Amino acid sequence: MKAIELSQPRLDAFRAATVATPEPQRGEVLIRQRAASLNFVDVAVASGNYPGPVFPLIPVADGAGEIVAVGEGVTRFKTGDRVVAHAKPRWIGGPPRPYEMTQMRGVALPGSLAEYVALPANSLVPVPAHLSFEAASTLPIAGTTAWNAIRVANVGPGSVVVLLGTGGVSIFTLQLAKAAGATVIVTSSSDEKLERAKALGADHLINYRATPDWDGKVLELTDGLGADLVVETGGTATFARAINATAPGGTLFTIGFVTGAEATVNLLPIIIKALKVIGNNTGSVSDLRDAARAVGAAGIEPVVDKVFSPGEAAEAYAHMAAGGLHFGKLVFGLEW
Amino acid sequence: MKAIELSQPRLDAFRAATVATPEPQRGEVLIRQRAASLNFVDVAVASGNYPGPVFPLIPVADGAGEIVAVGEGVTRFKTGDRVVAHAKPRWIGGPPRPYEMTQMRGVALPGSLAEYVALPANSLVPVPAHLSFEAASTLPIAGTTAWNAIRVANVGPGSVVVLLGTGGVSIFTLQLAKAAGATVIVTSSSDEKLERAKALGADHLINYRATPDWDGKVLELTDGLGADLVVETGGTATFARAINATAPGGTLFTIGFVTGAEATVNLLPIIIKALKVIGNNTGSVSDLRDAARAVGAAGIEPVVDKVFSPGEAAEAYAHMAAGGLHFGKLVFGLEW
Amino acid sequence: MKAIELSQPRLDAFRAATVATPEPQRGEVLIRQRAASLNFVDVAVASGNYPGPVFPLIPVADGAGEIVAVGEGVTRFKTGDRVVAHAKPRWIGGPPRPYEMTQMRGVALPGSLAEYVALPANSLVPVPAHLSFEAASTLPIAGTTAWNAIRVANVGPGSVVVLLGTGGVSIFTLQLAKAAGATVIVTSSSDEKLERAKALGADHLINYRATPDWDGKVLELTDGLGADLVVETGGTATFARAINATAPGGTLFTIGFVTGAEATVNLLPIIIKALKVIGNNTGSVSDLRDAARAVGAAGIEPVVDKVFSPGEAAEAYAHMAAGGLHFGKLVFGLEW
Amino acid sequence: MKAIELSQPRLDAFRAATVATPEPQRGEVLIRQRAASLNFVDVAVASGNYPGPVFPLIPVADGAGEIVAVGEGVTRFKTGDRVVAHAKPRWIGGPPRPYEMTQMRGVALPGSLAEYVALPANSLVPVPAHLSFEAASTLPIAGTTAWNAIRVANVGPGSVVVLLGTGGVSIFTLQLAKAAGATVIVTSSSDEKLERAKALGADHLINYRATPDWDGKVLELTDGLGADLVVETGGTATFARAINATAPGGTLFTIGFVTGAEATVNLLPIIIKALKVIGNNTGSVSDLRDAARAVGAAGIEPVVDKVFSPGEAAEAYAHMAAGGLHFGKLVFGLEW
Repeated sequence: MKAIELSQPRLDAFRAATVATPEPQRGEVLIRQRAASLNFVDVAVASGNYPGPVFPLIPVADGAGEIVAVGEGVTRFKTGDRVVAHAKPRWIGGPPRPYEMTQMRGVALPGSLAEYVALPANSLVPVPAHLSFEAASTLPIAGTTAWNAIRVANVGPGSVVVLLGTGGVSIFTLQLAKAAGATVIVTSSSDEKLERAKALGADHLINYRATPDWDGKVLELTDGLGADLVVETGGTATFARAINATAPGGTLFTIGFVTGAEATVNLLPIIIKALKVIGNNTGSVSDLRDAARAVGAAGIEPVVDKVFSPGEAAEAYAHMAAGGLHFGKLVFGLEW
Repeated sequence: MKAIELSQPRLDAFRAATVATPEPQRGEVLIRQRAASLNFVDVAVASGNYPGPVFPLIPVADGAGEIVAVGEGVTRFKTGDRVVAHAKPRWIGGPPRPYEMTQMRGVALPGSLAEYVALPANSLVPVPAHLSFEAASTLPIAGTTAWNAIRVANVGPGSVVVLLGTGGVSIFTLQLAKAAGATVIVTSSSDEKLERAKALGADHLINYRATPDWDGKVLELTDGLGADLVVETGGTATFARAINATAPGGTLFTIGFVTGAEATVNLLPIIIKALKVIGNNTGSVSDLRDAARAVGAAGIEPVVDKVFSPGEAAEAYAHMAAGGLHFGKLVFGLEW
Repeated sequence: MKAIELSQPRLDAFRAATVATPEPQRGEVLIRQRAASLNFVDVAVASGNYPGPVFPLIPVADGAGEIVAVGEGVTRFKTGDRVVAHAKPRWIGGPPRPYEMTQMRGVALPGSLAEYVALPANSLVPVPAHLSFEAASTLPIAGTTAWNAIRVANVGPGSVVVLLGTGGVSIFTLQLAKAAGATVIVTSSSDEKLERAKALGADHLINYRATPDWDGKVLELTDGLGADLVVETGGTATFARAINATAPGGTLFTIGFVTGAEATVNLLPIIIKALKVIGNNTGSVSDLRDAARAVGAAGIEPVVDKVFSPGEAAEAYAHMAAGGLHFGKLVFGLEW
Repeated sequence: MKAIELSQPRLDAFRAATVATPEPQRGEVLIRQRAASLNFVDVAVASGNYPGPVFPLIPVADGAGEIVAVGEGVTRFKTGDRVVAHAKPRWIGGPPRPYEMTQMRGVALPGSLAEYVALPANSLVPVPAHLSFEAASTLPIAGTTAWNAIRVANVGPGSVVVLLGTGGVSIFTLQLAKAAGATVIVTSSSDEKLERAKALGADHLINYRATPDWDGKVLELTDGLGADLVVETGGTATFARAINATAPGGTLFTIGFVTGAEATVNLLPIIIKALKVIGNNTGSVSDLRDAARAVGAAGIEPVVDKVFSPGEAAEAYAHMAAGGLHFGKLVFGLEW
């Protein structure tokens, strides 16, 4: 079958390859891959900043496709079913366990940039009926992480959520938080992106170029209390303000480090306000299932910013690595 | 001050009385009571079916009013503030504790059918800005119980909720569950009430007269799975079907017994489906605070079916005791 | 390979058989089965009282053995490893899902009464070092259910736990609850069994023949409050007293029905005391992993009452079906 | 009545004073204070490093004493009862709320260094029968924080807990974690203190002078996984190693900053390991109640390092401020 391989940890080391088509074994299905979604973790792998990969590898953790063959004992799926393939197909449910967390597609397991992949049936979730493969491919990492954010913080009517920037997880959390009844505040350096966030339901917009004291603005918007949930994607440049913007007992959901991973943290407000700083980088198949159900029920349309072909892998990775250029997700449409 | 007293455990034993006006002490405020909301528990007290009351007593657990005086050390409220008074003013937060659960207004503490009441400031919650006193008085028991239902079952986008009938808690749960993004199924014997539920957002309607196998209908509507949450208000006549209508791992929130409190239960489906049967009869002040915040943020308008004057206590209680006559809440407007 | 088959839903329909030895496929291992543990669910299958089986089948859900071959891609186990095989090998973690709950060994999947079985590596847990295969085989259903009981109710120092009878789950819960620092009350009709429970750490003993009002005795032992956790295994004859013996906000963990599955339940105390009635019949592999870790760390020795050979299946099932004869677990030692 | 006042934010600004004896109002009791326990927060107040105090004030948040008078409507306590007075008497239960968290004794409310104090009855917890007033006075902050640590991380049999140093919370957590069945690792720079920790049940001891790579040692002791719970009291000098010592999905309970409050944090392991960093500085009265129950049931004897008289306030504060000199708690015995 046709595939794109990443031959070494370098952002442009992609090459076309022909590899053996896998066979579905007991409990597995064979999927014709139709779309893949790019995440920051893929860039980290290609930059040599993620532990575990053995090169060459078939890159990209997230994907969606249709089932073309089923192995022995598989009863819940059949040929033709459209499925989302989880990025961590061994983490079926329960708390994070070391082994399951390292078994990620595009790192230790074959990723999405190939015609086919064989995966355990219990690592797959049906594509919500209203979604294209491109849109569905964004569910495993961005969708599940966003879902975990709103679940961990019990987001519902009355909750206040702050989202930093307009990347894939932020926009997904915006959509899910609005569906769950929350009030959402979005920050960005671009008024144009803020307007797009508003069109998706954002209640309050803060341009952090115009208002560098964005945390002060969050406090002002919340009667001095702060937000119940801040989804922290910025890292170095934003962490201290994110702490300040979080209400007593609130959650700082830490999932990214666009401006760097080293943060200088004052522990005193964490202690005095009894904050919860929760790290995350996706969830289990069980979490993905709930996320997909929510997306289906709420009719959420994942925001796809740009679609690349398999041959444009280097461009796609460069686009993601540049940071801040996109609104929503970067996706591959898998036509070979 | 003027008050209505219940002189003995009999549904018509109400009498007008003049009693001493209380003084707010340290940590307390004095409230001019403006509205009271009737719950089934009040009927149980007046019927001799609730443990603990000493007669005569000032009845009705729920209420709302405005602060007319503040005691020493009270800083978070001031004269003129509109407040909701919790039915269990000693249960500030945390899990239910025996003492705090018995200290209910209208049972062990003075209730709402009097001109004034002195209560601890920390048992009060501000009235959401958009609500009248009548509407706000429904928050402590009906609103908080409904809130607990959706919180206990983690109701959000993708969840399926079944509500039995159109009483106060059912309608409140309908409004909160819709605000939280859930799909809601409502049952009733009245097509007219079902239409009113639909106008409030109900997604599916089941007339259980026309469809006695309403649990089968719930399974049909949910691809055979059942609901994530069933709010059980029926008791004897509905409990078995409610179990059948609940999905594996789902929650049967048990809060009422309109058709009787004795239920014959088959434990097998509870065990095999790993169900959670959760009893409830309101929550803490902390829960009320969250419920009020949700009602305020979502702009929910509690449904008041009928407003009585203090002198119509016997009529109001009879109306509630008859069962099934109302849609939403029965309320007292407190003009003396 | 040699196996025992259950040819039809009858308690004595066991027969020796020779069947094909399975091959481990990708992600699977081949296990030489060394011990199997009997649970009430096995009796239900053999009595025709459990949904789903297709006869003939290889019976018994729980087991333990050693790995004799590993399939492609399996890295965390190797030949020679001693493992516990979960009864529900598809339920890796997360909340109960319909499909995963029906995929039980001895029902829809091959059980433990055969020389070999091939199972997914992620459904297995290492045998705690200090345990024999016989002892380890009791972990999947009895051990995990007991673990869930103490986890669901947050049992720790200061908690009070009531156990009905001295069957497998009761004794396991006794051992885990004591390791977790709780106070444990055990009921039985046999003073001799109560003495054995005492030797395992039980703090209070109630002979319910001598003290039919055992729930009153529990209230007396707990200053009138009741227990934080009651593990309900009795069903018809005990459910009402179990409710009475549970403290406000407490948990009635419902897992059995030795005296029948139909219970007449008064909903009023469930509502007024805000009880949680939680059904359970084992947990996920993730739960089993935690249970095994606890058993290993605490040095708990599962109580094996009697060991049968594969040829004694009918006797073993009859012994279990008779009820009340054993103390702890009935186990098969698998020598062929 | 006699009292010690702190006249300004300076570590030696204590003075003897005579102030009005308070009167218990409705819902309150009058307590003759018998012991007080010193915490780092008291030093922060006296150093000008804590928000909110108005000087002069009666210092020290924690205390215990006996009831000498009860106000109107108080039924659950009577004269002569021995009670623990919570540091935050308005935080009865539920999540942390801004107002309740600022109402701390020794800051916004009168503290323990006075003959009497009037407090709401619902902010008090009975002294466990086996404890002296001195020992009981350590429960509100140190005991409750330790309890929250083991509850938040679901510590039980099989859990691994790491404690940094041998201050009050560390030693309390050691005692509670052992009672809950956990394996406990203690670090210290003093072999003598480590031996005392061992006598209290510590399973593994690490002298971080001899083994500066103490986090590597924790990983070695846990098969490379790390601990389920690390109680972080060190701050600047220990935070990065504490993250490294925590297992995937584990909890870093952040409660102190003996070496400074500014920490340089690498967010990557927090994200990749999905860690939970939970800030805390005590809990609610409900948490205190559970902590006291656990201490009573497990027969835990809080470790009191040194007892001071009221006149020795400056010495006691200096001792606490010096850091690292004590093992367990510093306490005042209140004889005037």
